[in-house]
Amino acid sequence: MSAAEMNAPPAATLYNRVCVIGLGLIGSSLLRCLMNDRGLAAEVVACDRSDAVRARVAELGIADRVEADATLAVAGADLVVLCTPVGAYADVAALIGPHLAPGSTLSDVGSVKQAVVRDVSPHVPDGVHFVPGHPLAGTEHSGPDAGFKELFRGRWLILTPPPGTDAGAVDRLGRLWAACGSQIEVMDPSHHDQVLAITSHLPHLIAYTIVGTATDLEETTKSEVIRFSASGFRDFTRIAASDPVMWRDIFLNNREAVLEMIQRFTEDLTALQRAIRWGEGDKLLDLFTRTRAIRRSIIDAKQA
Amino acid sequence: MSAAEMNAPPAATLYNRVCVIGLGLIGSSLLRCLMNDRGLAAEVVACDRSDAVRARVAELGIADRVEADATLAVAGADLVVLCTPVGAYADVAALIGPHLAPGSTLSDVGSVKQAVVRDVSPHVPDGVHFVPGHPLAGTEHSGPDAGFKELFRGRWLILTPPPGTDAGAVDRLGRLWAACGSQIEVMDPSHHDQVLAITSHLPHLIAYTIVGTATDLEETTKSEVIRFSASGFRDFTRIAASDPVMWRDIFLNNREAVLEMIQRFTEDLTALQRAIRWGEGDKLLDLFTRTRAIRRSIIDAKQA
Ligand SMILES: NC(=O)c1ccc[n+]([C@@H]2O[C@H](COP(=O)([O-])OP(=O)(O)OC[C@H]3O[C@@H](n4cnc5c(N)ncnc54)[C@H](OP(=O)(O)O)[C@@H]3O)[C@@H](O)[C@H]2O)c1
Ligand SMILES: NC(=O)c1ccc[n+]([C@@H]2O[C@H](COP(=O)([O-])OP(=O)(O)OC[C@H]3O[C@@H](n4cnc5c(N)ncnc54)[C@H](OP(=O)(O)O)[C@@H]3O)[C@@H](O)[C@H]2O)c1
Repeated sequence: MSAAEMNAPPAATLYNRVCVIGLGLIGSSLLRCLMNDRGLAAEVVACDRSDAVRARVAELGIADRVEADATLAVAGADLVVLCTPVGAYADVAALIGPHLAPGSTLSDVGSVKQAVVRDVSPHVPDGVHFVPGHPLAGTEHSGPDAGFKELFRGRWLILTPPPGTDAGAVDRLGRLWAACGSQIEVMDPSHHDQVLAITSHLPHLIAYTIVGTATDLEETTKSEVIRFSASGFRDFTRIAASDPVMWRDIFLNNREAVLEMIQRFTEDLTALQRAIRWGEGDKLLDLFTRTRAIRRSIIDAKQA
Repeated sequence: MSAAEMNAPPAATLYNRVCVIGLGLIGSSLLRCLMNDRGLAAEVVACDRSDAVRARVAELGIADRVEADATLAVAGADLVVLCTPVGAYADVAALIGPHLAPGSTLSDVGSVKQAVVRDVSPHVPDGVHFVPGHPLAGTEHSGPDAGFKELFRGRWLILTPPPGTDAGAVDRLGRLWAACGSQIEVMDPSHHDQVLAITSHLPHLIAYTIVGTATDLEETTKSEVIRFSASGFRDFTRIAASDPVMWRDIFLNNREAVLEMIQRFTEDLTALQRAIRWGEGDKLLDLFTRTRAIRRSIIDAKQA
């Protein structure tokens, strides 16, 4: 029994043993929250495939126990949270599935949800509650050093439990994230993927594209793009510096919704292009005036 | 003679009388700089077509004199700076041209430069130095209350004097902006327009487009776009809340360069769309990795 367990007996904590798999920005931030509020988990187990990451997590002291073997890591845990890139979920789930404790909860933090349900569900044994989740929180940095315990504070946490999921399990997980500072929202996986396609995935794709377009300019212009980037471009480069593997997985795993949004966006851009070409100032003015109203709504909703 | 002129005799100031026309975000910020450092102009004259704006500028006390009539405002000034939207330049220049003092300098702050040279040059009398300028500074707010004297601090100020312009006039204007905190850069108007097309104009156009695309979604999704806007979308809405008239004028007046950049961007987006459709993860990963490097260059160039 760890020192933590002795100080805070299981009965008084939300979970007995929480296991976090994948110790990057999100996983290590969750670890920090769990270690900071010992009412959440009596024992915190951390697991990553990378030796360097595990060594660093041990050094940072943000877990009670660090494991290389995911099957050992999940054994006896009443909550397991997948925090690897989404593309690794199927393999990890296949590996740990048989070792999940009856009555335990399996969750994740993936940025897409339909694909997660598709990839993970088949490996969830009967009697284990599967409650997918997505914290709308992040930075453009990766790895265990990028994490911090305030990351989820004031941010949304969307849960997408399949129909028929045990309400108690959903509620308990919601309380854990609320203790991390999140606001909880429950929705359908497909609706989640649609909303995120426009609020997050398309903006990131576009930022990657425009930064790529700039990268292809002649050398002299390129160096000036960097020097004079403060005029708008810079904001895009921050977004386009996000983790490449994570974003590849997002686009491959929310394909339909993202393609649909690209299609709409391209049509709208083509209309603007035409208005510029033909000098149709009124059309431009009309759109630019409408978009101001959306900004105001966001400010009113205290999301600005 | 104003009180200011008596306190700071012309010989000791950079200019004798500076006239600012158009008292919005940029014009009023410039006024604040001039009033703050009385070594720059012995007399500061402000001019706007709007009664309300003039009244507000008088109330704010950010000019020695406020004029409705531009011909009176420019009389006797040794520096006149146009700060109206670019679309108004031709009319204003035609109006004030005959009243500009011999040996004086005419400048502006417009976000495009070839069109400004095209529209203003014909109205500049012999013996008046025309030195177009562009401060790479701004916010999404407009009007005299939006201005502040720190706006130009640490920001670039690009001057695009036509070939053969008096070097002394260019140098003097550069010193004024340097005193406002700007870093001065001199370049060709067409090069300016190209660099700004990618660093500023295309990012704004894209932000306007994506926010417009979101506006057209079904009502339920739209309200969620607002609630969950923090995941990337929000950054675009700030850009897309910029002044509609100013941006209409920019797109209409930097048409060629902007259309060229839209073309390149669309090609790149189409390639990504294709990669997503066909599940070509390597192509996505490759681009997402390259764009990270640009971000690093911007951080290294201390523009982040
Ligand atoms: N970053 C954000 O803004 C954000 C926001 C919301 C949700 N998310 C979601 O959070 C998850 C993690 O993202 P992150 O930003 O924290 O990523 P990250 O910083 O790159 O960390 C991912 C970690 O998972 C490890 N990993 C990869 N494959 C693994 C496997 N097969 N088994 C065990 N560990 C493995 C990685 O190790 P290696 O270094 O060896 O690859 C790395 O330590 C993703 O599902 C993402 O969709 C991210
Ligand atoms: N905002 C930026 O981020 C930014 C950055 C760099 C450069 N600039 C350039 O700065 C200039 C002004 O932009 P701003 O943001 O300061 O705009 P703003 O806040 O909208 O102010 C423009 C002012 O010019 C007045 N005006 C319009 N037409 C006029 C006319 N024909 N005669 C006299 N006054 C007139 C407007 O009066 P009404 O209210 O009556 O229209 C308003 O007071 C533009 O050329 C723009 O390209 C802007």
